[in-house]
Amino acid sequence: MSSEKQETAAVRVLGRWPSPFVIRVLVALRLKGVLYELVEEPMGNRSELLLASNPVHKKIPVLLHHGKAVSESLIIVQYVDEVWASQGPAILPSDPYARATERFWGQYVDDKLPSAIRVLRGKVAGDKDEAAAQVAAALQHLEEACVQCGQGKDYFGGDSIGYLDIALGSHVGWVRAVERMARVSLLDAAKLPSLAAWADRFCAHPGVADVMPDTDRFVEFSVKNDGVLKAN
Amino acid sequence: MSSEKQETAAVRVLGRWPSPFVIRVLVALRLKGVLYELVEEPMGNRSELLLASNPVHKKIPVLLHHGKAVSESLIIVQYVDEVWASQGPAILPSDPYARATERFWGQYVDDKLPSAIRVLRGKVAGDKDEAAAQVAAALQHLEEACVQCGQGKDYFGGDSIGYLDIALGSHVGWVRAVERMARVSLLDAAKLPSLAAWADRFCAHPGVADVMPDTDRFVEFSVKNDGVLKAN
Repeated sequence: MSSEKQETAAVRVLGRWPSPFVIRVLVALRLKGVLYELVEEPMGNRSELLLASNPVHKKIPVLLHHGKAVSESLIIVQYVDEVWASQGPAILPSDPYARATERFWGQYVDDKLPSAIRVLRGKVAGDKDEAAAQVAAALQHLEEACVQCGQGKDYFGGDSIGYLDIALGSHVGWVRAVERMARVSLLDAAKLPSLAAWADRFCAHPGVADVMPDTDRFVEFSVKNDGVLKAN
Repeated sequence: MSSEKQETAAVRVLGRWPSPFVIRVLVALRLKGVLYELVEEPMGNRSELLLASNPVHKKIPVLLHHGKAVSESLIIVQYVDEVWASQGPAILPSDPYARATERFWGQYVDDKLPSAIRVLRGKVAGDKDEAAAQVAAALQHLEEACVQCGQGKDYFGGDSIGYLDIALGSHVGWVRAVERMARVSLLDAAKLPSLAAWADRFCAHPGVADVMPDTDRFVEFSVKNDGVLKAN
């Protein structure tokens, strides 16, 4: 029987394709050239493996590395950067001040964007105008950070995609989807020229393009699953 | 005039003594043997220096290192660990999985404790029974993590104080203060033997004792400033 026994991949990600938090883990692994298996969690349900791997939060994504579980997406990104330090570009810079700056903005992104995007999707109740204003204000801050950090560079991380690129970039698909669904302008090239150009570059990067679904797929997913939207 | 010009310390912390987030920065600096100046922010007001140093959140603590500003307490702790890597004990362990585990619990602590403690202090409105239950559940999780992480060791970090010790330990003063003020039992040695013993060890550590005010001072501060409490 042993020859037929299915081998478990050394690196598995428990997740779902539309989750920005899963997307960022996949991007980090791809940048580092790490082979992985994406184990799709059933919609509206939690697998036994997920409950056993992340008993505290019971949330995706979870990275299983030789069976050891790491949870919380930005912690996973740092774990990937540290374990595969000698492979691919560094995700966090080496300078402590630059690391602190990227961590600051990464945390800011997760404080401001996901909750507002869920409202704009119609996934949770809330004031859509307020949510759009929150996203717009956050992106304006990041436009300014983009000019400061990236002078003459393609990414927040410099010449290659780094921690803040991943933290913010993983939300770009949903930002574009809610622009269409909620009829708001957010990543507007006229208002945010640096950030809009950065978002295009990020999504076209070979480490990102394969795991970042296009806007249509996010919209379809939302219409089917978020429920409230059709009334809009 | 130059001889009279006051020298600015290389490391300054903008903060207020009762803030657990400030306490954790001071503990990290003391463990590393870094000399610093604590610049007390006025109560109920924000200094020009704070507004200029942390324009996004306008919050304490801010670490100013040769004038460069770092914000968000756990990001500052990592910055201190990285800049003064060769001084004092390492705050984060070197193993990536152990680092991820400490970061996970550090984030958990800040998700669960501060908001509930503010309710129990009477600083913000809310259901005190619910808040006490949230703290108790979090501490129960951490008691289990304490047994797993610390086997035979004094701290979550092993033989010396580490990242999670600082993240959780900085809240111990307020946990004990709200136990008394809201007449609830939280860090109970009968229920949480490992954690209660750890909390005593942490607060008695020479790197902590000088910057962790005693329970009386927190209670006095709260009665004077949080307003609502006297009615309890």
